[in-house]
Amino acid sequence: MIVTELIEMKRDGMEASAEQIRFMVNGFVSGEVSDAQMAAWMMAICIRGMTPRETGELTLAMMHSGDVVDLSDLPGVKVDKHSTGGVGDTTTLVAAPLVAACGGTVAKMSGRGLAHSGGTLDKLESVPGVCVEQPLDRFKRIVRDLGVCVIGQSGDLVPADKKMYALRDVTGTVQSIPLIASSIMSKKLASGADAIVLDVKTGGGAFMKTVEDSAALAREMVRIGDSLGRRTAAVITDMNRPLGMAIGNGLEMKEAVDVLSGRVPESDPLVRVCLTLGGHMLRLSGLAKTREEAERKLLHALRTGEGLRRFRAMLGRLGGDVSYVDEPERLVRAAELVPVASRASGFVSAIDAKKLGVAAALLGAGRFKKDDVIDPAVGILMKKRYGDRVEAGEPFAVLYVNSRERFAEAYEMISSAVTVSQEPPKEIPLVYEVIE
Amino acid sequence: MIVTELIEMKRDGMEASAEQIRFMVNGFVSGEVSDAQMAAWMMAICIRGMTPRETGELTLAMMHSGDVVDLSDLPGVKVDKHSTGGVGDTTTLVAAPLVAACGGTVAKMSGRGLAHSGGTLDKLESVPGVCVEQPLDRFKRIVRDLGVCVIGQSGDLVPADKKMYALRDVTGTVQSIPLIASSIMSKKLASGADAIVLDVKTGGGAFMKTVEDSAALAREMVRIGDSLGRRTAAVITDMNRPLGMAIGNGLEMKEAVDVLSGRVPESDPLVRVCLTLGGHMLRLSGLAKTREEAERKLLHALRTGEGLRRFRAMLGRLGGDVSYVDEPERLVRAAELVPVASRASGFVSAIDAKKLGVAAALLGAGRFKKDDVIDPAVGILMKKRYGDRVEAGEPFAVLYVNSRERFAEAYEMISSAVTVSQEPPKEIPLVYEVIE
Repeated sequence: MIVTELIEMKRDGMEASAEQIRFMVNGFVSGEVSDAQMAAWMMAICIRGMTPRETGELTLAMMHSGDVVDLSDLPGVKVDKHSTGGVGDTTTLVAAPLVAACGGTVAKMSGRGLAHSGGTLDKLESVPGVCVEQPLDRFKRIVRDLGVCVIGQSGDLVPADKKMYALRDVTGTVQSIPLIASSIMSKKLASGADAIVLDVKTGGGAFMKTVEDSAALAREMVRIGDSLGRRTAAVITDMNRPLGMAIGNGLEMKEAVDVLSGRVPESDPLVRVCLTLGGHMLRLSGLAKTREEAERKLLHALRTGEGLRRFRAMLGRLGGDVSYVDEPERLVRAAELVPVASRASGFVSAIDAKKLGVAAALLGAGRFKKDDVIDPAVGILMKKRYGDRVEAGEPFAVLYVNSRERFAEAYEMISSAVTVSQEPPKEIPLVYEVIE
Repeated sequence: MIVTELIEMKRDGMEASAEQIRFMVNGFVSGEVSDAQMAAWMMAICIRGMTPRETGELTLAMMHSGDVVDLSDLPGVKVDKHSTGGVGDTTTLVAAPLVAACGGTVAKMSGRGLAHSGGTLDKLESVPGVCVEQPLDRFKRIVRDLGVCVIGQSGDLVPADKKMYALRDVTGTVQSIPLIASSIMSKKLASGADAIVLDVKTGGGAFMKTVEDSAALAREMVRIGDSLGRRTAAVITDMNRPLGMAIGNGLEMKEAVDVLSGRVPESDPLVRVCLTLGGHMLRLSGLAKTREEAERKLLHALRTGEGLRRFRAMLGRLGGDVSYVDEPERLVRAAELVPVASRASGFVSAIDAKKLGVAAALLGAGRFKKDDVIDPAVGILMKKRYGDRVEAGEPFAVLYVNSRERFAEAYEMISSAVTVSQEPPKEIPLVYEVIE
């Protein structure tokens, strides 16, 4: 096969065969297809799109570019969850142990944060001692004992995605449903899940800005999962505001512990979304017939503290000092706490979640480059939610600060991230749609 | 400016500013814009196109990426001609000295052949001693004395085009009117011409397969030339068959000398096209008011032998042994002459010019890679034209062969390049359209 001809086919809007797609993906991993050729091909995909069959073949080719984790020796339906990335989103930390407490099997490989969005691994590591790099057999042993374990990628999973994503990031080819869907699904499939619940974020703080785009991405991913024999469901959830009140790794870990400890009301948006996602995980695992039954079971696991016990035990097995779970305020001992006051009285009518995410990263909670070092103690604790009443001079957020290096920039960004208006804003749904 | 944002703009079909286009072109030359980023941008241009203003700005940015030749100290209108590349096309060798003989000033920088299409420099070098690399002042002195000189590129002309073309060649981004037009026109503008006649080939042996595509490319190039103050005209000529009878460098040089010596009838297609192109060159130079007047002058230069004298003198000034012009059969002394016989009796109803070009290259007359060495003596001499009667067993071509290395492949290709049918084929125009 001639690389330029395959690129020209896609340029001219023709459909590629499975063999041709494998040739491009494997050639790119081996170096036979150059960065420039891959970039041209992916740009053609961005503009011309891919048929569902092509997107499925691309997912498979990427999945098989490296190791594929075999979880078949673990009992039950192995259920995974994936979020497309948001701000103040600790749903994995809460939902995974609750699902395990209800009898589910959550063997999950997570990622790190980049730019404005956080990553579960960074949050786990805010607990001193936690090591997210674990050999596969140890990972499986923890899952067998506790029903849940969350670690980093084990082995050489989907090397094609790593290389393709790094290239997309610099060549303006990130925004493409076939490329996003195949990137996410190839990793989920390679990490061995039988069932997958996708949390597709939508809005200003998310990758997909509109419900329509989010739903299109969700449908594509569900279709891929179904066609490859995985039970798959997608939930479109709101990211026009941060989901929880905490943005920053220790702060978010504390918030997750607070939820699992029953210190957060069950009506809280974060708790509601965790129950929704966890509910779908239970349903796809065959452990609940209806959403209502699933929610009942999850609430029982929450109220009895069984979710917290599983979470605490998991952190311990990962090497973490679990005394931090018992006294989570020790996770957020920053040098200074700086309130950010509202300039006007009124109602919080808009929160720019992306700006908050970037500001938290500026304070040291996130990365702009892959090798930036994270400070687990810093970040933003929101004091007001969307729709809340606030008075002029009243703080709507408190910053946890250890370094003043980029503080001014972060402070300015946070100040401008919240809009106050005279009228209460209209309600925004937390969950827009479920696709399965 | 952020490179990815500029790429995304073009991906989404938005128009780029002059500054943004310069940023991409100069950044690519300097290395700040990577191959992959440029490939993605050019793929987006292939699919989304460019507005006329953008194509003009791209041409200017490319033109100014390196040296710009100043010919303003030469007298008169400096007229250039460019062919988009064909097979058996010696029009530059014939038309340039004829135009000079009529008082025109032809200071021309030419290129080399690649793949199936020939290049003027390779043809010039078939005359022993000819050196096409000349310092600019020597080049100008020859033009001042003879009215004509054809050499290779002097200095660092349009480095952006060299780098962009090499990348387009491997990334499926060759086929794009804005990219082709800006590539050609940036080189013509950088080499200092006041007036430009474009020979846009159309058909199977050409880059553009249809008259519509060729006309679209021609219009774009004429528009760019006009908008930058150059008198520009384009002639769409046929490349469904080789233009002359000779394919191969010494063979084509001999054919050009034969034309200039009056040994080829004035009704010959090659002569007709040379008179057409030369006529437009004279008109744009202000040396003829009408096409008829131009043709009269050119025929006079041909019949008096003044064109040949200019050509012979030019080759001499370039270091060539002009005795080869006097005895051109010495240019084509190959080890073997192998006839290729027709398998059937009938009329030549199709000639695949591209196949013939590739076959000649296989015999050693052309390059597949940039550093392949050319044998000036080898090639193909056609014995039959499109529409000619041929008998079974009668040769329609003679091969000039020095090496049997790839002979079988070439022979097979030539045999299959000519179609013989019972009925005489319909006539094909030599010149389809003139755009100015």
